Amino acid sequence: MPYRPPVSDYRFLMDHVAGFSDVAATDRFAEATPDTVDAILSEAAKMCQEVLAPLNRNGDLHPAYLENGVVRTSPGFADGYKAIAEGGWIGISASPESGGMGLPMTLTTAVNEMMASACLALQLNPLMSQGQIEALEHHASDEIKALYLPKLISGDWCGTMNLTEPQAGSDVGALRAKAEPNGDGTYAVSGQKIYISWADNDFSENVCHLVLARLPDGVQGTKGISLFMVPKFIPDADGNPGKQNDLRVVSLEHKMGLHGSPTAVMEYDGATGWLIGPEHGGMAAMFTMMNNARLGVGVQGIGAAEGALQHALAYAQDRKQGKAAGSGTIIEHADVRRMLTTMKADIYAARAIAMMNAVAIDMTTATGDAGWKVRAAFLTPICKAFGTDVGIDVASTGVQVHGGMGFIEETGAAQYSRDVRVTAIYEGTNGIQAMDLVARKLMDGGEAAFRLLEEIEQGAEAAKGTHPELADAVWQAAESLRETTEWLVEQSDLNQRFAGAVPYLRAFARVLGGHAHLAAALAGDATRTKLATFYIKRLLPEHTSLLAHAQEGADDLLAISADDLAA
Amino acid sequence: MPYRPPVSDYRFLMDHVAGFSDVAATDRFAEATPDTVDAILSEAAKMCQEVLAPLNRNGDLHPAYLENGVVRTSPGFADGYKAIAEGGWIGISASPESGGMGLPMTLTTAVNEMMASACLALQLNPLMSQGQIEALEHHASDEIKALYLPKLISGDWCGTMNLTEPQAGSDVGALRAKAEPNGDGTYAVSGQKIYISWADNDFSENVCHLVLARLPDGVQGTKGISLFMVPKFIPDADGNPGKQNDLRVVSLEHKMGLHGSPTAVMEYDGATGWLIGPEHGGMAAMFTMMNNARLGVGVQGIGAAEGALQHALAYAQDRKQGKAAGSGTIIEHADVRRMLTTMKADIYAARAIAMMNAVAIDMTTATGDAGWKVRAAFLTPICKAFGTDVGIDVASTGVQVHGGMGFIEETGAAQYSRDVRVTAIYEGTNGIQAMDLVARKLMDGGEAAFRLLEEIEQGAEAAKGTHPELADAVWQAAESLRETTEWLVEQSDLNQRFAGAVPYLRAFARVLGGHAHLAAALAGDATRTKLATFYIKRLLPEHTSLLAHAQEGADDLLAISADDLAA
Repeated sequence: MPYRPPVSDYRFLMDHVAGFSDVAATDRFAEATPDTVDAILSEAAKMCQEVLAPLNRNGDLHPAYLENGVVRTSPGFADGYKAIAEGGWIGISASPESGGMGLPMTLTTAVNEMMASACLALQLNPLMSQGQIEALEHHASDEIKALYLPKLISGDWCGTMNLTEPQAGSDVGALRAKAEPNGDGTYAVSGQKIYISWADNDFSENVCHLVLARLPDGVQGTKGISLFMVPKFIPDADGNPGKQNDLRVVSLEHKMGLHGSPTAVMEYDGATGWLIGPEHGGMAAMFTMMNNARLGVGVQGIGAAEGALQHALAYAQDRKQGKAAGSGTIIEHADVRRMLTTMKADIYAARAIAMMNAVAIDMTTATGDAGWKVRAAFLTPICKAFGTDVGIDVASTGVQVHGGMGFIEETGAAQYSRDVRVTAIYEGTNGIQAMDLVARKLMDGGEAAFRLLEEIEQGAEAAKGTHPELADAVWQAAESLRETTEWLVEQSDLNQRFAGAVPYLRAFARVLGGHAHLAAALAGDATRTKLATFYIKRLLPEHTSLLAHAQEGADDLLAISADDLAA
Repeated sequence: MPYRPPVSDYRFLMDHVAGFSDVAATDRFAEATPDTVDAILSEAAKMCQEVLAPLNRNGDLHPAYLENGVVRTSPGFADGYKAIAEGGWIGISASPESGGMGLPMTLTTAVNEMMASACLALQLNPLMSQGQIEALEHHASDEIKALYLPKLISGDWCGTMNLTEPQAGSDVGALRAKAEPNGDGTYAVSGQKIYISWADNDFSENVCHLVLARLPDGVQGTKGISLFMVPKFIPDADGNPGKQNDLRVVSLEHKMGLHGSPTAVMEYDGATGWLIGPEHGGMAAMFTMMNNARLGVGVQGIGAAEGALQHALAYAQDRKQGKAAGSGTIIEHADVRRMLTTMKADIYAARAIAMMNAVAIDMTTATGDAGWKVRAAFLTPICKAFGTDVGIDVASTGVQVHGGMGFIEETGAAQYSRDVRVTAIYEGTNGIQAMDLVARKLMDGGEAAFRLLEEIEQGAEAAKGTHPELADAVWQAAESLRETTEWLVEQSDLNQRFAGAVPYLRAFARVLGGHAHLAAALAGDATRTKLATFYIKRLLPEHTSLLAHAQEGADDLLAISADDLAA
């Protein structure tokens, strides 16, 4: 079944829900005219459909492997990467002076989703490079920028992120990697890093590792961490890859999915590195990279979900079974229709949140406005966690639609489910996202949250005349969410917030989804209204039980000890 | 991490929640004294812990494979099977005159769960034999019984179920397999069957296939289907395996999980078979086997969930990360505690439902009472679907608790998740279970449902004095469920019921879980009260949104066409 990129959905969300016209109206993004947007989306769609999608199964069946210290990638991945690089899809939003297109992150988001639907394992490679490009643009010296950015944007070189160590996962501050000054402005970086996605490949000239490590005078914890550029091959005087650096891929992991993406243990043994940003200022640079990557990972979830939906839908329209009316295929069964419609409605909700997130980033870039900045920061953990949860749920439902065939690997449904599972874990687990939301992102007393809720209620007001029932449901949901948000903000003991952080995040996403569906009912055709009705009446109600959970606090929960759990 | 069977939980549920004392008080099950129950559970626990659990990973790493037409099983599985057979664990509830123990299905349920936790892929083998034993006990001739039952109960021979064909999955009535009389009382059975679990092995003397096929005068649909015993080796005059029958394993499937369980395509080419039950009466016999198997599959989900919980709990108590209080391990984090507690509380709820289901079966067996019979029939789809959904959710949460390690296969968390996925599909997908619940199981006008709800409300009344808040929540939930049940019963157009069947089934399970937790708070220690409080306050509220969904009916849903979904 060929993948058909949902280009019209991106356009609809940009035009009618996410407010992309504000972005296009800025000087910074004046080039993002409707024609340019259409051209970008349709070109990228063509590449995803024709080049990347046929590679997806290769990655699963023929995982990347290590041969004499070098990673050998899955069959066809080199060609797929070349198509991504030559299309310019790595640097859509990168600065034009370094070879990027300088276009909005909203477009990058749409294109990334298409690439993720087509071949998630390969798409993770440019996603890592995109994060690195943004970190360098914001934090690197002019020299480093001049040397690395053009290569990363053209795709000649790839970028990676090296944060995690065996004892330092979610707690990055516990890392032990060291960097010692060499006296010539460079540093000797040593230590072991794990879970390094695309740590190596056999199709790019160089691999550029951004590595977190501690300088000799770095204090313990996150405040003593610095960021270093540590390339696989040290650039020579002409900027070409020169001698091999003192780093190596120790091993690759055997994973549940995403086999086409090599996940490595890396060893740095006095490797030559260059400081990025100030000494001990590594976390700030890292957060630039991670915020971007978190939106990107949320979008991976959405992409996998879209792939799984299209796959399941094709099966449901083909498979004859039972006394189905009409076509005689299983799509005529109410329960199959319920599954497919849930998939579709949830994907739209998650995609809308991603688009709103991207627009907020673009408006921050274009205007520097603090309100947009906090909105982007507020939406990022919601986008990441909800997008990937939708990815996991939709892919699992896709398996279910297939019945017995879903469990058979040849069908392809199971691969979506296995591949997407990691997206709820990497770039900060979804639990970490939720904790970020209720702690750091509510530190403003809930201002960013309340402003979003006001907009949601305004949207509901506007829809009251034409869609009274749907509008009322969304308005009520926003009010309930406001009450719980107020309760959370009042809790000075963060554990009271953390205990219900995950259900709170999901409730927020549910309500944002209701807002986006209501907007679709208002601006869209009959199809969108039907989908909105399904979502608002059948899926949105989940927010009540989630909010009840969120507001229960920590006391009863923490009273349950490890012994209680083992009893 | 060694698996520790939750024997005390089974005892607690039997004694305080599921009403096992009623079973033990019957003449039929007079032997099920507390001492016997304890002995059975502790012996089985020992075997599961020491023999089966160490085999679990073998099945995943070294799948069963086909060699010259014969299935070769995973390393150690032959020994594991021998331990199951020699312990008598296949025939706990089988008739003593054929070598079974004649003990209640409630005990079989507990033992099956332990075996499933320890090694799901291998446990599926005796589960299939148990279904076949029950079908033969109810429907076979005395001759067939005398020949096959002792062999199946001792484990010398294994049993399988052959329903599905490529064009006949959930719609069994569409099958094409044929059976022609040979003139000597036997039949020549021909056709292809797919998804045959444990269709062959290299450790039992014989494999006995129960095959659904159509006699020459069989009408189309389910009313023309007959059931046949088709053994791999035809028993000789002494009842020993004789000449090879005309059947063969064509191929084995490559599956997402459960690699240790060979899933075969079977070809019957005029194989000699014996009719079981009356001509064209195959579906009745099949349903005997399937009802039993559905309870058994629900229990597989619970077993996998228990394994995943123990695995995740051990990791959470060992892994140091972040600024955790107390032990410094991640179990101190509120969100990790939330995940583990959710796993534990949901497992208890699902296990309670399985135990109530088993008790209803035992009471039916012992008393023949129609009220118990309809209760067993009503609980079976709930047990199957909720038990396996809990299995899938808990196993996925177990992956999440492990963070990055969860996605790495060596950890073992991912295997639970991949293995258990099929349980929501086989033995009737969970969608089919829900349709069975709202159609066939409400055909009595909801009587079975309302009787359960009355008991739940009586339980809540009894708890009012000591646990007013929890009791009120459960009582209210039962009332809401009653209203939706009444609405469903009123719908003569079954599609109105089917559209919300899955959320309705889950809501029913949620409320039954609330009932079981409330009973635990009443009868149990502080640990059980804390767990009940968590469940009733944080998880039970989900029923409101599920019931809202269930009561939306089919009109809006079926208005969404295939074109709408593809838009």
